[in-house]
Amino acid sequence: MKDNLPGLTEVQAAARRIGSSVNTTPVLRSRRLDAALGAELHFKCENLQRTGAFKIRGASNAVRSLDDAEAAAGVATHSSGNHGAALAAAASDRGITAHIVVPEGAVPSKLANIKRHGGRIIPCKPTLADRTRVLEEVVAESGATVIHPYNDPRIIAGQGTAGLELAGQVPGLDVVIVPVGGGGLISGCSIALKGMNPDIRVIGAEPAGADDAVRSLAAGEIIDDIDPDTIADGLRATIGPLTFALIREHVDRIVTMSDDEILAAMRRLWECLKIIVEPSSATVLAAAEQYRDELRGKRVGLILSGGNVDLDRIAFCARCGVG
Amino acid sequence: MKDNLPGLTEVQAAARRIGSSVNTTPVLRSRRLDAALGAELHFKCENLQRTGAFKIRGASNAVRSLDDAEAAAGVATHSSGNHGAALAAAASDRGITAHIVVPEGAVPSKLANIKRHGGRIIPCKPTLADRTRVLEEVVAESGATVIHPYNDPRIIAGQGTAGLELAGQVPGLDVVIVPVGGGGLISGCSIALKGMNPDIRVIGAEPAGADDAVRSLAAGEIIDDIDPDTIADGLRATIGPLTFALIREHVDRIVTMSDDEILAAMRRLWECLKIIVEPSSATVLAAAEQYRDELRGKRVGLILSGGNVDLDRIAFCARCGVG
Repeated sequence: MKDNLPGLTEVQAAARRIGSSVNTTPVLRSRRLDAALGAELHFKCENLQRTGAFKIRGASNAVRSLDDAEAAAGVATHSSGNHGAALAAAASDRGITAHIVVPEGAVPSKLANIKRHGGRIIPCKPTLADRTRVLEEVVAESGATVIHPYNDPRIIAGQGTAGLELAGQVPGLDVVIVPVGGGGLISGCSIALKGMNPDIRVIGAEPAGADDAVRSLAAGEIIDDIDPDTIADGLRATIGPLTFALIREHVDRIVTMSDDEILAAMRRLWECLKIIVEPSSATVLAAAEQYRDELRGKRVGLILSGGNVDLDRIAFCARCGVG
Repeated sequence: MKDNLPGLTEVQAAARRIGSSVNTTPVLRSRRLDAALGAELHFKCENLQRTGAFKIRGASNAVRSLDDAEAAAGVATHSSGNHGAALAAAASDRGITAHIVVPEGAVPSKLANIKRHGGRIIPCKPTLADRTRVLEEVVAESGATVIHPYNDPRIIAGQGTAGLELAGQVPGLDVVIVPVGGGGLISGCSIALKGMNPDIRVIGAEPAGADDAVRSLAAGEIIDDIDPDTIADGLRATIGPLTFALIREHVDRIVTMSDDEILAAMRRLWECLKIIVEPSSATVLAAAEQYRDELRGKRVGLILSGGNVDLDRIAFCARCGVG
């Protein structure tokens, strides 16, 4: 680890550490999508991961990395979604408490997911200032270790195990496309993938409505004063110092897309792969569609990051099952 | 093969014959569903099969079993759904024509699926008499071989490869639950599973609104004068002589459930497994819920038969992706 930046070695160690707490997720293919894009597409299904998203990989690695005294005081984080549920599950595996600071107005199904995995929910106002204040209070009271959702080398190394696993399942990948939110997943995957094969290309997929990574790369410094506006609720976070450094070093390009393009891609994934993915996951297919000229004839990995959609918003009817 | 009834040997031969024309489908698990049922549930995902349903297994086996002269004249069937698409795909693999007689009023997404796989669609009125008349005309004109959706030993042996594959993926299964429509899938799976392990239990899941198999078993003869009324559109067919004989010999019990129970189970599968299954598939979870006392502590296989739901009936909205 150089300058606190994890590398392939740390990802491999994370894979050993998290072992059976995570699923080895399947890689699915679709003849229809292959034909539409003129490429060989391999979808890594982290929507089928435990807790419904890749986040359990990083959370398990972080929680299992604590020594016994640290662990005894519990862990804490702020999250409106998948990281909270993942940290709750990882803490529950180790028999310790997870304090999750959640802003009012969070998606109900994601809140339910945190509760179901045994997380202790502490509400805060939906502002950065209040979130920080409440998290500091929780830590002062409990002595819990704060586990940041992405700007943490243990989290990054853990998320990278998705890329490591994909490379083992699909030899000879030319390109891998990964969603970009806070940057933990793409950072971890790129250090794993490029560590094994320096010639592989890693492409980021970022919603146009939360394009801080693209702007930051262009500016050469972190631009985080954006007001994210995208349906891809898992990708609204802004990148941090560690993930920015790793993205600069390893990611070849970041492609952006509109919410309409994300929704259209999500619908195609539901239909062609018969799996439920959340909007964040669909960014990778939307990116592939934009980037298709460069992908033609290539073997492409696409990481589907999660599947936590609010099905309460689908009314099941008696005619065809859904309506 | 005794009395034209296929056995384990025929299923094993089918597995070799269909080889790479079908997917090896993943087996998924859910800690949540395991906890809810107090059993170890292994879901065999034929919804992730090529064409979106297990039917390609039987269709490929039948088409590949034809000699060159037979094949040259093409194949024909009547189908309002998954068998039609599967036969079209299998025929297309061999470069021959599939004539599919489809009743007016068939589910549009299933019709589109037949067309997409290159099937030639011939419409008929939605009556048994007209369907038979039109199919006879097609055969008289083309010389095509009729491939019945289930009452055919090649189809039954092909469908059985789903059970064979599941047994290879999950050793030590105590019970396997399989949907019952025309009976091809459960017949094939039961000969494969019991051929390998006579102690395994095979349970059928049949909609109460299309319970001809239950009635036929009770009567000791085929009762097919029912008017099926169920949302599980893949299970409206009535069993035939071959499937009835195999079900009588090998299936331990058939459980029935209401459409409401099927829909509730479908919703749970979407939510817990993050996959899209059609109502027919959900019957196996509904059956497991009814049968839970006998399943407690057991290792249970559940065959999810297909995922061809009409997504046009889901309005994607800009807020959360689905609404």
